[in-house]
Amino acid sequence: MPRIDPERLLADLRTLRSIGAHGMGVVRPAFSAKDMEARRWLAARYAEAGLDASIDGVGNVLGRSRKTGKALLVGSHSDTQPTGGWLDGALGVVYALEVARALGADGATRELPVDIVSLQDEEARFIGCLGSRSLIGALTPEMEQGATDRDGVTLAAALRQAGLAGEPRLRLSRERYVGFFEAHIEQGSTLDDSGKRLGVVTRIVGLRGLRFTFRGQQNHAGTTMMARRQDAATALYELAHRINQEFPKVAGERSVWTLGRLKIEPNAASIVPGYAELDLQFRDAEETQLDIFTGLAQRIAAEMNARGGVRIEATAARAPIAPTQMDAGLRAHLEAAAQRHAPGAWLQLPSGAFHDAGILSALLPAAMLFIPSIGGISHDFAEDSREDDIVLGCQVLADAVADCAAAARS
Amino acid sequence: MPRIDPERLLADLRTLRSIGAHGMGVVRPAFSAKDMEARRWLAARYAEAGLDASIDGVGNVLGRSRKTGKALLVGSHSDTQPTGGWLDGALGVVYALEVARALGADGATRELPVDIVSLQDEEARFIGCLGSRSLIGALTPEMEQGATDRDGVTLAAALRQAGLAGEPRLRLSRERYVGFFEAHIEQGSTLDDSGKRLGVVTRIVGLRGLRFTFRGQQNHAGTTMMARRQDAATALYELAHRINQEFPKVAGERSVWTLGRLKIEPNAASIVPGYAELDLQFRDAEETQLDIFTGLAQRIAAEMNARGGVRIEATAARAPIAPTQMDAGLRAHLEAAAQRHAPGAWLQLPSGAFHDAGILSALLPAAMLFIPSIGGISHDFAEDSREDDIVLGCQVLADAVADCAAAARS
Repeated sequence: MPRIDPERLLADLRTLRSIGAHGMGVVRPAFSAKDMEARRWLAARYAEAGLDASIDGVGNVLGRSRKTGKALLVGSHSDTQPTGGWLDGALGVVYALEVARALGADGATRELPVDIVSLQDEEARFIGCLGSRSLIGALTPEMEQGATDRDGVTLAAALRQAGLAGEPRLRLSRERYVGFFEAHIEQGSTLDDSGKRLGVVTRIVGLRGLRFTFRGQQNHAGTTMMARRQDAATALYELAHRINQEFPKVAGERSVWTLGRLKIEPNAASIVPGYAELDLQFRDAEETQLDIFTGLAQRIAAEMNARGGVRIEATAARAPIAPTQMDAGLRAHLEAAAQRHAPGAWLQLPSGAFHDAGILSALLPAAMLFIPSIGGISHDFAEDSREDDIVLGCQVLADAVADCAAAARS
Repeated sequence: MPRIDPERLLADLRTLRSIGAHGMGVVRPAFSAKDMEARRWLAARYAEAGLDASIDGVGNVLGRSRKTGKALLVGSHSDTQPTGGWLDGALGVVYALEVARALGADGATRELPVDIVSLQDEEARFIGCLGSRSLIGALTPEMEQGATDRDGVTLAAALRQAGLAGEPRLRLSRERYVGFFEAHIEQGSTLDDSGKRLGVVTRIVGLRGLRFTFRGQQNHAGTTMMARRQDAATALYELAHRINQEFPKVAGERSVWTLGRLKIEPNAASIVPGYAELDLQFRDAEETQLDIFTGLAQRIAAEMNARGGVRIEATAARAPIAPTQMDAGLRAHLEAAAQRHAPGAWLQLPSGAFHDAGILSALLPAAMLFIPSIGGISHDFAEDSREDDIVLGCQVLADAVADCAAAARS
């Protein structure tokens, strides 16, 4: 079997971390100067590994194998959250590079075709999983139209700024591929809490969002008596608190919901706010649970609207995601490799986070491997994993990719 | 009696509006390029009116009379809210200019010493009433130290940017002045609702603020189960909603409170927020009522802290303001002039908004005149007043200033 090089793997992860490093963490949002620098660095490494490297018109970096036959696609994303951890998607991107190098260096596996990829904007600066959506033809002009980041920058402007405007966009051919493998940190605490070292993902939870807008009347905070106010922030606080009070009564065991982004205008202590926005995001492995949450949030907003005053509108977020099953055949290769290298120290688990594998599974069989996040912390500068787990995960992925590619050939 | 020139008054108000105009409204926050442009324009008009004009080291524009004897000070502020109305403090600043010109053009009043002023940062970009605080010696180094605007710009940097760093700062001499007159739009709806055209202010409500900080744990919004979260935003929504539920039970008739400024970090839909801030501002004419609100807000925060999880801290805002009485002698001149020009069409009322007159009253007798705000709207681009009310208010102020200055001389 192919042997990965732990020192080379860790050195490449540290180099990638240095591009946009902020203390322990990384600030490398999609299409930023640091993100594009990281993508050019990856393309150079892909070429060194003997792959045909390219960066497409939405920033996806693809390293295409020159070997013949049905290929595997392996990778993840190298963009980060606004204040992101150093591993997150970068782990799976560097794993893919190391797997390609390890298979290429082994006489038994060097003819197996393995393409590797770093996808773009998984973290939703503009549109979550923009890169993988584009690769399967699911990025529509309607979604792109008017897509802006939280500072009001348009996607079109970011593409121009990154030098990508008008560049060709890749599409994946269903015929070329056996399937897609993605490795990632767990981001939750299931592995860390249970003392296991690897997780094979059974399914990825679905995600929906609602954006509430609150339209009241901006006014002076000293002279406007309480009875005359139409305070957009007051309505926002009430809606948010009621959602947090009422959702637990109908939630499933692994349901989660978050009210993590808002805007208040003009956001000054001496002014009654006239306008506000609040994003509600919720996730569950069952569509029916997502329907229940949607209905409940809309009912609370409707009850508040029925009282008059501030007008609340709810609109569905741009890119809902349906719950998805991982492919049983690909999973079996991950499970066999995990059992070989870490007998009894792995488990099956659902993914509470969304991943590009959830998008690509609409076109290709897909599977995911997790390694533990220390303390379950992620999307934070403090995110980290143990070095021995990082090395183990890459070796298990290399084995699974080799097994799966060999099986497809025979 | 002196006669003001309505056309000149309205023309100057329109010119001042044009500096920083945004549609109907004005964007001219303290120390911005437009604010300083407006101050230089005012200084030139003061000089044309025969006054010794200067801009001091915090941006106050003073036009000092060359006449002898005890003087009156008349004025308001020309800085605006981030999205301000066109009248607000600008009305009283241009009134003062027109009053000085009208008195200077009349044989019976031309020897009366009247100084005029445009004060700085009444609207609290850095420190509410910064300019009037500085004039009476109440702007301490501790207040200036670390004062920042909502974008994180420091006061020191704004002073440098405006070319004011190190420039001399004026201090008002108690001996020079009989008192201070400030005219302003009401900003509330008492005059507009009652069909009255003028208001003489009896007292100015006091104001206090608390800033709450919420420290939790930033984490991934998909993988962090609800029971493990320490969501700073969830705590903010609960505290804000409980304040809005519980304050009405203890409030006075004219009590107001506002939760108009907040910050959530990192403010992304897919991240459990780890940090948040919320500003509570409350006003009442009675100190005891302000004490009741302070205690209640702190009690709610303490109850939430006792449950564990997100840690809430409350700190007093930088610049609390005590309720203040307007001077009975100065008020009598305003009331007499109001009754002369608008018999039965004026009333006495408290000011729910804070004003520089509240600060200057610590050093000088002070009084205020209000004109109606259409619909009670202010601190908004839509703020407006009727032209005939604007003209009437200026004439009444001119009469009162002439009467008061003449009485002081005799």
